[in-house]
Amino acid sequence: MATVGATPAGGVTRTTLSDADREARGLFVQWCREAGLAVRWDDMGNLYARRPGQDPDAAPVMIGSHLDSIPRGGRFDGALGVLAALEVVRTLNDHGAATRRPIEVVNWTNEEGARFPPATLGSGVIAGAFGTLFAHDRRDWDGKRFGDELARIGYLGDPANRPGAVDTYLELHIEQGPVLEADGLEIGVVTGIVGTYWAQITLEGQAQHAGPTPMAYRRDPLVAAGRAAALVRDTAVAVPGGGTATVGRLHTEWPNIINAIPGKVSMTLDVRHPTRAGLDEVVGRIRSGLAAICAEERVSHTWEEVWNMEPPAFAPDAVEAVETAARELGLTHRRIIAGAAHDAKYMNELCRTAMVFVPSLDGKSHCEEEFTHWNDCTNGADVLRHAALYFANR
Amino acid sequence: MATVGATPAGGVTRTTLSDADREARGLFVQWCREAGLAVRWDDMGNLYARRPGQDPDAAPVMIGSHLDSIPRGGRFDGALGVLAALEVVRTLNDHGAATRRPIEVVNWTNEEGARFPPATLGSGVIAGAFGTLFAHDRRDWDGKRFGDELARIGYLGDPANRPGAVDTYLELHIEQGPVLEADGLEIGVVTGIVGTYWAQITLEGQAQHAGPTPMAYRRDPLVAAGRAAALVRDTAVAVPGGGTATVGRLHTEWPNIINAIPGKVSMTLDVRHPTRAGLDEVVGRIRSGLAAICAEERVSHTWEEVWNMEPPAFAPDAVEAVETAARELGLTHRRIIAGAAHDAKYMNELCRTAMVFVPSLDGKSHCEEEFTHWNDCTNGADVLRHAALYFANR
Repeated sequence: MATVGATPAGGVTRTTLSDADREARGLFVQWCREAGLAVRWDDMGNLYARRPGQDPDAAPVMIGSHLDSIPRGGRFDGALGVLAALEVVRTLNDHGAATRRPIEVVNWTNEEGARFPPATLGSGVIAGAFGTLFAHDRRDWDGKRFGDELARIGYLGDPANRPGAVDTYLELHIEQGPVLEADGLEIGVVTGIVGTYWAQITLEGQAQHAGPTPMAYRRDPLVAAGRAAALVRDTAVAVPGGGTATVGRLHTEWPNIINAIPGKVSMTLDVRHPTRAGLDEVVGRIRSGLAAICAEERVSHTWEEVWNMEPPAFAPDAVEAVETAARELGLTHRRIIAGAAHDAKYMNELCRTAMVFVPSLDGKSHCEEEFTHWNDCTNGADVLRHAALYFANR
Repeated sequence: MATVGATPAGGVTRTTLSDADREARGLFVQWCREAGLAVRWDDMGNLYARRPGQDPDAAPVMIGSHLDSIPRGGRFDGALGVLAALEVVRTLNDHGAATRRPIEVVNWTNEEGARFPPATLGSGVIAGAFGTLFAHDRRDWDGKRFGDELARIGYLGDPANRPGAVDTYLELHIEQGPVLEADGLEIGVVTGIVGTYWAQITLEGQAQHAGPTPMAYRRDPLVAAGRAAALVRDTAVAVPGGGTATVGRLHTEWPNIINAIPGKVSMTLDVRHPTRAGLDEVVGRIRSGLAAICAEERVSHTWEEVWNMEPPAFAPDAVEAVETAARELGLTHRRIIAGAAHDAKYMNELCRTAMVFVPSLDGKSHCEEEFTHWNDCTNGADVLRHAALYFANR
């Protein structure tokens, strides 16, 4: 799978609904069919591959993740969870093992949201967080519509193919952070996800020639944005509880030339915190600090809230099943809060849900160096299999 | 002329060698020919329109400026100096006034350098500062070559059309700053130009997922770049002598998405100061300050010097001729140092040179609001005519 959209530096660029995404889906569908699974996709392009259960009326156990990536992302983010889920089914096939409940392997559309914000759009529509029309109207940076691109790559399916009742959703994912490696542990038993807040910010001052405009006459939105970028970091460090705050995009919009004071600057904000109160505290301090900076620099600004996600907690019995699986397999483990949203966030609103984490080398993710040792991948797939079988036979 | 490349907000986008530049040149050539001038262009596309003198062997007085603009620039920057020069010639025609020396009206190619850095490329080649091959190999942001674009719009002329010996070069230009307006004066007698230093800077850290990467593990080049943007401003304010320092472009290069710590950031630096020592002081402080910030933020950086221009002084007799013209016309005036490079900078290396400034409303330039009152335009053209006639009849 890592050859699809492969980058020279060892990562992948497999942005949502790109040609590379289509190729990845084709490969996944082929492998699922070779494993005897019945494949279908819904009106969001979410792909489901079903292995029948002994009780045809029982709600399925669903396992999987996503095959899309950010530009120049890593090979493991998402793909590990999808392919490990397929491997679980193949292993059951190899052993002729039947389960009471059906098992469905899922590939969610647009988990990353890099091309079509917001993130986890495919599972979000299934959970009712977003409407289909809203989702299909999302546009990429070239103005292309999500719905048009979904049809273009051939994965605009029937709404009737959406999942019905799901018994349990389990997702294996790389940690994407340094905690498991730093603690020398093999498995992360994920108890929930940090709350996340996204904003799009613009700052406007006065575009002027850089030479003949004395410093005292300037209203420079980039000076304000630069100070804000430092404020964002300092605020995340200052507020207790392990939150983060990041400016991922910052651009001088115009005149955008070396010899003019910028007239307009755009920037993004990503804040995360394990608690609602902590999230609000970090966002609030940044917002008031930005307003103070803009007043000092005599520039105006806008603040558009793009996403504001409560920190969800997973079902205790699902978390315990993952913990039990790790213990019974003899793997070292700890409970951990996910630092990023996953499709498990929305599935948690629909059914019993939990996640399994495996270590990320040097804590790196969303980059081409992203790596997880193969034995850690195997360990994660084993825990996923144990926990999935536990619920599939109940 | 302002209708060519006009923008909805009242400015112009007439970037060098664009279709709008071609249209502006065509209009200028037509008007010059209607005024009886002999038009030619050289291998840089510099346009010369010659009015004969009584002494055919005398070196000409050259007057003019440039018709190119930055993207979304103003109507007056450059165009005023070209069209006022043409108006000087028309006025001489109206009065049947002969001059001893020929008078040439010039439109320099690529004064702005916005599309094809560096700035003042056309006059720089004439002065021998740049070679023709270097100039023709400049590329815009889409990778298009200067030489190819010059041929495409039909203005790749004969090197033999370059000017020979020039007696005096005079350029009328808007001030592009707030000084004349603040002082309530009509004419700026320009004594020289500030020194200018340009650098292209990149900062590299570690691209990582914004959520699961605790603040202490980060190497974020945007935090460093943001602090640097504030440092640039603070340094220009701190060093005495009226220098400026500006970051005109700053971009998160990749992953360049809302939910990833940037891996690479690019930014530009523009520093100006009336003295060589002041210029070196501002640049040196910024350079060492940036290195300290990058060390603190654990990011690497590169610093590429793009331009490093001494502050040139104009010929005293040319400056005095401009001053005399303003006084004899009864216009209020002061001596002033230009805050930006102009083609007069390179012509000053070839011949006696001076400039005339007229006020910019609110000091604004390089923006669509750029404006100079019509009576100020007329005043400037009158001073240009007086000074040009003084040298044309010597």
